[in-house]
Amino acid sequence: MSPAPDEDRRWLDAAAAVSARGRPLSAPNPAVGCVIVRGGRVVARGWTQPGGRPHAEAMALAALGGDASGATVYVSLEPCAHASPRGPSCADLLVAARPARVVAGQQDPDPRTAGAGLARLRTAGIATDLVPSPACAAALAGFLLRITAGRPHVTLKLALTLDGAIALANGQSRWITGAQARAHCHAERARADAILVGGGTLRADAPRLDVRLPGLEPRSPQRWVLTRGQAPKGWNAVADIAAPQAFGSAQWLFVEGGAGAAAAFLKADLVDRLLLYRAPILVGSGLAAVADLGLETLDAAHGRWDRDRACQLGSDTLTIYHRRR
Amino acid sequence: MSPAPDEDRRWLDAAAAVSARGRPLSAPNPAVGCVIVRGGRVVARGWTQPGGRPHAEAMALAALGGDASGATVYVSLEPCAHASPRGPSCADLLVAARPARVVAGQQDPDPRTAGAGLARLRTAGIATDLVPSPACAAALAGFLLRITAGRPHVTLKLALTLDGAIALANGQSRWITGAQARAHCHAERARADAILVGGGTLRADAPRLDVRLPGLEPRSPQRWVLTRGQAPKGWNAVADIAAPQAFGSAQWLFVEGGAGAAAAFLKADLVDRLLLYRAPILVGSGLAAVADLGLETLDAAHGRWDRDRACQLGSDTLTIYHRRR
Repeated sequence: MSPAPDEDRRWLDAAAAVSARGRPLSAPNPAVGCVIVRGGRVVARGWTQPGGRPHAEAMALAALGGDASGATVYVSLEPCAHASPRGPSCADLLVAARPARVVAGQQDPDPRTAGAGLARLRTAGIATDLVPSPACAAALAGFLLRITAGRPHVTLKLALTLDGAIALANGQSRWITGAQARAHCHAERARADAILVGGGTLRADAPRLDVRLPGLEPRSPQRWVLTRGQAPKGWNAVADIAAPQAFGSAQWLFVEGGAGAAAAFLKADLVDRLLLYRAPILVGSGLAAVADLGLETLDAAHGRWDRDRACQLGSDTLTIYHRRR
Repeated sequence: MSPAPDEDRRWLDAAAAVSARGRPLSAPNPAVGCVIVRGGRVVARGWTQPGGRPHAEAMALAALGGDASGATVYVSLEPCAHASPRGPSCADLLVAARPARVVAGQQDPDPRTAGAGLARLRTAGIATDLVPSPACAAALAGFLLRITAGRPHVTLKLALTLDGAIALANGQSRWITGAQARAHCHAERARADAILVGGGTLRADAPRLDVRLPGLEPRSPQRWVLTRGQAPKGWNAVADIAAPQAFGSAQWLFVEGGAGAAAAFLKADLVDRLLLYRAPILVGSGLAAVADLGLETLDAAHGRWDRDRACQLGSDTLTIYHRRR
């Protein structure tokens, strides 16, 4: 008898959580998570390794010596069906490991798999279920958009005052938010594989946009500047953010402003997630966070953003929204 | 033996909560709350009645037929010591009622009482304690500022977008926030005895500023406009908000913008509380919530606002801050 879908979903939440360890270093592969459960306990876990191999299932199965008999394998994304020069397919590995059941939280949109992974397992007599999991979809959002829309998942981060300024009128922007909020932002950078600012911000602030957290320095993402001109050394330039493959193979793009870049992404409806770090200060007549969006009515602005959660970071408040689609 | 201060403080919290029922109709008297406790249970409560009489203690004692023997009387403000043509002093009423103990959460700054109320009880052999209570001080903030600073407590309310706009660039401001947030704002208006907008907002929006909640219509506060000119019929004009007694005897002033009025109160450091209703929308290049404050550095903006609490009102978020003083 299969467990209730709620129990499956809880294990898939765990697989999604484990997958975060591979993000974003798994690129160009998706960061997948796998937990293997036997008798109600997790007996092995795995996540996609840097560079994309080994896959999550291979890591978890290796921890069991390749023997998953009697166990249920939870995996955030359907196991791959295509062998590669870098190793056998996960479907083949699973068939050999003989689990009682395999549950995936998301079908693989990669046309080389797209259902073929689970079909291969069923053919081999292993019970399979696809249990759509919001946590797995969210953990794989960058990969899914890359495959289905040819673009990365976009987070727009703004650090602003209660009255919506990102700097004083004289340009001073250091610091609006405090040390805890800035450290949190660096951790968010470390989860992205590309980071962007507008040309004006690059010229005005010369931001390093790297990850300055002990141990996470190697996670500093690829740097992009929104400009029709040349990129400085160590940066990439993009002029048309809506062009297919504008950001190469990046799955997670982190946009840090300024107002022009924020408006460009919002007008193109390319922002999937808002990360608002808000300091408890009022400055009056500061520089606005978002440039003109060309809105004629307030109605046009409503119905777009759903609040995920909020938390305090020292005296600052972080609120996260996602685009309703 | 006296209860632990923590227990006293909890009963004083209850007295402060009860006092809210008298706000703001008790003006020009403070809205006081009283709970009488016997054997660990509340046996009577009272609050200042519309127009300021009877007082909270008189109401609670009346419910006991004037006999409080063996009970502890908790009152948010020290009982008055001065008799008036409208009735005896609360100190005299309490002496006659013979409670075992009287606990006040706040000394009365009115020079006619100022410690004399509790002294009168002690002289009559009744145990008394002054247990400073943050809840009582907050409930009486308007009265305390009126006596000690000659001005009302000021709440600045802003209804704004995630990017800090109170309207589109074309002036459209209806509606940024939703029905729940607007109803909450009307309930806040009903707790004020004066309400103000700037002259520009009055001309542009012609707001009614009344309380449009069933049963609370009579609570609509006195309307003020910040202007050097004449007030329209039904309104009061104020040109200098920092002038002593600028708002007559008002204890609770509710400022609803616009950007100029918000800036005027902030520059004069007259805002005690911020009420931010924030809709989950981005508009870009809208009308800013706060006009120029003349800040030269961000440092000057920090350290002023402490967050009290936040809650959801439909899809809008209400966040409340108070001025650190």
